[in-house]
Amino acid sequence: MTIKITVWNEYRHEKIDKHVGDVYPQGIHGAIAGFLSYCEDFEVGTAYLDQPEHGLTDEVLNNTDVLIWWGHMAHGDVKDEIVEKVYDRVLEGMGMVFLHSAHASKLFCKLNGTKTGRLSWRDHGGELERLFTVNPGHPIMNGLPDYFEVPKTEMYSEYFDIAQGAELITISWFPGGEVFRSAFTFTRGKGRIFYLKPGHEEYPIYYQQEIQKMIINGVYYVKPNCDMTQVDYRVNIKLPRK
Amino acid sequence: MTIKITVWNEYRHEKIDKHVGDVYPQGIHGAIAGFLSYCEDFEVGTAYLDQPEHGLTDEVLNNTDVLIWWGHMAHGDVKDEIVEKVYDRVLEGMGMVFLHSAHASKLFCKLNGTKTGRLSWRDHGGELERLFTVNPGHPIMNGLPDYFEVPKTEMYSEYFDIAQGAELITISWFPGGEVFRSAFTFTRGKGRIFYLKPGHEEYPIYYQQEIQKMIINGVYYVKPNCDMTQVDYRVNIKLPRK
Amino acid sequence: MTIKITVWNEYRHEKIDKHVGDVYPQGIHGAIAGFLSYCEDFEVGTAYLDQPEHGLTDEVLNNTDVLIWWGHMAHGDVKDEIVEKVYDRVLEGMGMVFLHSAHASKLFCKLNGTKTGRLSWRDHGGELERLFTVNPGHPIMNGLPDYFEVPKTEMYSEYFDIAQGAELITISWFPGGEVFRSAFTFTRGKGRIFYLKPGHEEYPIYYQQEIQKMIINGVYYVKPNCDMTQVDYRVNIKLPRK
Amino acid sequence: MTIKITVWNEYRHEKIDKHVGDVYPQGIHGAIAGFLSYCEDFEVGTAYLDQPEHGLTDEVLNNTDVLIWWGHMAHGDVKDEIVEKVYDRVLEGMGMVFLHSAHASKLFCKLNGTKTGRLSWRDHGGELERLFTVNPGHPIMNGLPDYFEVPKTEMYSEYFDIAQGAELITISWFPGGEVFRSAFTFTRGKGRIFYLKPGHEEYPIYYQQEIQKMIINGVYYVKPNCDMTQVDYRVNIKLPRK
Repeated sequence: MTIKITVWNEYRHEKIDKHVGDVYPQGIHGAIAGFLSYCEDFEVGTAYLDQPEHGLTDEVLNNTDVLIWWGHMAHGDVKDEIVEKVYDRVLEGMGMVFLHSAHASKLFCKLNGTKTGRLSWRDHGGELERLFTVNPGHPIMNGLPDYFEVPKTEMYSEYFDIAQGAELITISWFPGGEVFRSAFTFTRGKGRIFYLKPGHEEYPIYYQQEIQKMIINGVYYVKPNCDMTQVDYRVNIKLPRK
Repeated sequence: MTIKITVWNEYRHEKIDKHVGDVYPQGIHGAIAGFLSYCEDFEVGTAYLDQPEHGLTDEVLNNTDVLIWWGHMAHGDVKDEIVEKVYDRVLEGMGMVFLHSAHASKLFCKLNGTKTGRLSWRDHGGELERLFTVNPGHPIMNGLPDYFEVPKTEMYSEYFDIAQGAELITISWFPGGEVFRSAFTFTRGKGRIFYLKPGHEEYPIYYQQEIQKMIINGVYYVKPNCDMTQVDYRVNIKLPRK
Repeated sequence: MTIKITVWNEYRHEKIDKHVGDVYPQGIHGAIAGFLSYCEDFEVGTAYLDQPEHGLTDEVLNNTDVLIWWGHMAHGDVKDEIVEKVYDRVLEGMGMVFLHSAHASKLFCKLNGTKTGRLSWRDHGGELERLFTVNPGHPIMNGLPDYFEVPKTEMYSEYFDIAQGAELITISWFPGGEVFRSAFTFTRGKGRIFYLKPGHEEYPIYYQQEIQKMIINGVYYVKPNCDMTQVDYRVNIKLPRK
Repeated sequence: MTIKITVWNEYRHEKIDKHVGDVYPQGIHGAIAGFLSYCEDFEVGTAYLDQPEHGLTDEVLNNTDVLIWWGHMAHGDVKDEIVEKVYDRVLEGMGMVFLHSAHASKLFCKLNGTKTGRLSWRDHGGELERLFTVNPGHPIMNGLPDYFEVPKTEMYSEYFDIAQGAELITISWFPGGEVFRSAFTFTRGKGRIFYLKPGHEEYPIYYQQEIQKMIINGVYYVKPNCDMTQVDYRVNIKLPRK
C-alpha cells in the first residue's frame, strides 16, 4: 500500500516572522513532510500558497490520496476556483487533514457547512493544552494514552461552530478555564476528513511525538476506500424505469 | 407561543404548466400556508422568487422563526446575496424546512456541506412511495403510523449525497426497486433543519394529511430555542486571559 | 399539555449523613419535585428505594410520562425485575432524566449498552465546575448562557464510557485539569433520555437556577411523542406476504 | 499484520434440517471460515454452541481479535456468564461482526442497549434483496458497487429497534414493499461492532462474493486499535488531586 500525501501550507508567516521561521526553518509543511517521510507506506510532496495555482495543479491533485492543510492569516487569498477543485476531489474520495487554524479556511467551511468555524481563542505566550481521548477505540488514538499534554500552545475554546455529526476523538483542557473539541472526523461524499487542533506556528508542536502519531494515524484513517474515478458530483441521475 | 412562518416557493412551474397550476391554483406556497394557518400557534406569510429580493427582505427575515423552502427548476436564479443572508439567519437560530427538490437549492447545499445534494430520480406518471419510520420517538413522527403511503409521486433514490450526522426519520420504498432517506433533521450553528422528500408539483401531495402532519410537527421541531440577537457568526472571538 | 413526572431518589444518604440531610431536608427528590411543581404544565410525584417496589408500581409507572432518577451508593439494591419493568416503559416512550451518579445505575447501563458508565472522579471538598454549551440550538440550552459555573461540586472526568451516538450538549471544565461530557441526550426504542452530571449530594446544586432550568427544559425534551400503548418490544413480528 | 478471527455459530439447524445441512455441509461457521482463510492476514478458528463453554474459553477469547457471531433459534441457550465474558472483551477492544439473526442474540442486545433488536420479517421461499450503499466512502463498502442484489433471502423490515448513533452503511429494498437498515457499525467502550443482515441459513448467501467482501472488509474495520490489556471496565477510578 502506498498513500500519496500532499502537505499544503500557507508558508508566509515563516518568512516574515523570524521567531516562526526559527521554529520551522523548512516551513511547517517541511516539518510535517519530514516526519511523514519516515513511514514506508507514504509518498510525500508539498505545496504552498504562493506557488502557481497554489501548488495544487490537476496533476498534483490527481496524484494525491490525502491532502494536509495548514493556513491561518491568508485564507482569503486562496482562490475560489482552487477551493472548488479541491472540494470536488474530496467528494470523490480524497482524504483531508485540517490542522489548527485551518478550521477557518474556505475549504473547511465549505465542507463543514458552517460559515467561519467560529471559536474563541487566546495567544498569551504559550499555555498548556491537555488532550483527553473520548473515543479510545478510534484508529486515530491507536498507541496514544488516555490523555497527554502539549506544553505550550495557543488556546482555542468552545463554542466551536462545527457541524453536528462529527465523530469526536479528543477534548482539550486549558488552565485558563476553557475546553475545546480538539480532534474529530467527519465525511462528505466519499471523502473522509480529520481535524486536529494542535499546531500553532510559534511553538514546536509538530515535532512532538504524540501529535506526529495522531497525524500519521489520521492519514491512514482518511485515505480513500474507493475507486475515485467513477463519481460525478455535478449531476443528479435520471433513472430509467425498470 | 406564536411561531412566525414564511413559506417560500419558486412559483414558476404553476404559472407555465396548466397541469401543475390546476393542482396548486394558489401556488404550492398557498397550499402549504393554507393548512398551516389552521394551527393557532402559527402566524403564516409567503414569499416567492420573482418578488423583489425574492420576497426575503430584512423585515421579512427578521420576523421569521421558521422558513419553509420549495424550489426545483430555478435554483440558479436565487441570488447569492439572498442565500448568504438567509444562511446567516439560520446559523443564528431560524428554523428551516426544505421540501422535495429543495435538496438541490443553493441554501441546502451550503448548509449541508455537499455540492448538489446528488440523488437518482425518475418521474414516470406517478409511482407509489411508502414511508417507513425508523425513529418512532422523534417529535416529527408524533401521531404518524409505522408506515404510510403517498399514492403518486416522483421517485427519488439513493445514493443521496447528504452530510453524515443527520438524524434519520423515515426511509422510503418505491415499487421500481429503490430506497431513499426521505425525512431527516440536522443542525448548523443554532439553526435546526428538517428535510422532507414528498411533494412533487404534479401531484396533490401537500393536501395529504400525513404530509401536512409531518410539516406541522417539523415546524415545532425546528423553531428557535434561543435568543437570536446575540450571535455574530462573522468573527472569531479573542478572549482575555483570566 | 400536562406532563406527569415521577422523581425517583435512592434517599438513603440524606438519612444517614447529617451534612447531606441539612442540604436536602426533604430529600433530593423533594428538592427537585419542589422547583418542578412551579411549572403549570407539570404534575409531579416522588418515589424512593425503600418503598415497596421502590415506589415504582405499575400504577405509578403507567401514570408517568417522565421519570427522573437519582442514586449513587445503592445501585445494587435496585431489584432487577423493577429495572426490567422501567426499561420496557422507556422503550415504549417514557422519557428519562438521569442525574449525576445515576450514570452507574443498572437502568442507565442497560439502556446505554455499557457496563458501568465508567469514569474518573474526585471529591475534594468541592471544586468549581464550568459548563460550556457545545450545542447552542438544543432545546435543553434554551435560556442558558454560553457557559456557566457550579461553584462547588464533585469532579467527574473523561474517559467516560458512554455509547457512541449521544447528542452532546455541554462539556465541563474543572480546575484540577479535567474535562467531562456533562450533558447529553440519546434515544432507545421510542424513549428519549437525558443525562445531566451536576448534582452531588453534599452541595446545594439542585437549588441553582441554571441547573433547574436545564432539568425543566430536559423534561419537555424527553416527554413522550407517541402513543405508548401500541408497542410490544418482546416479539419480532412475522409479516404476511402482500 | 495478523488478525485472529473466531467464527461462532449456533450450529444446530444444519444438523436437524437436511436442506440447511445441504447448503452448509461444514456448518455456516465452516463456510465463513472457509473464505476468510484465503486472506493472508487472517488466522481463523471456529466455535459453536454445543461445545464446552460454547467453545469460547478464556484461551480462545484471549486469542481472538475479531469474533463473528451467527445464531437464530437458540439465543436463549447461550449462558449468561459466557455472554458477560465476551461482552467485557468487546469493551476492551475485541471487534464483533454480528450476522443476520444475531440481531436478537443476548450479546447484541446487551451491547446495543435494546431489548430484542425487534424487527418484522417474512420467509416465503426466498425473496430478492437489493442493498443500496448510503455511505460510499466507508471502508466496508470498498470495492462494492452502488447497489447489488441477493437473489433469494429472508425478508427483514423496519421498524428495526436499534440504538441511535449507528453509522449506516446500506439500506435494503424488498419486492414485497419493505426496507431495512441492513449494514451498520457502532462502538461500545473500545470495541467496534459491525452488523450485516444477509445470511439466512436456507440460501447459499455466504458463498456470494459481495457478501464475502463485506465481511472481509468488516473484519479489517472492527479489528482492535488498542492495547487490550489496560482497561478495567468494572470500576470507576478515583483520581488524586493534582
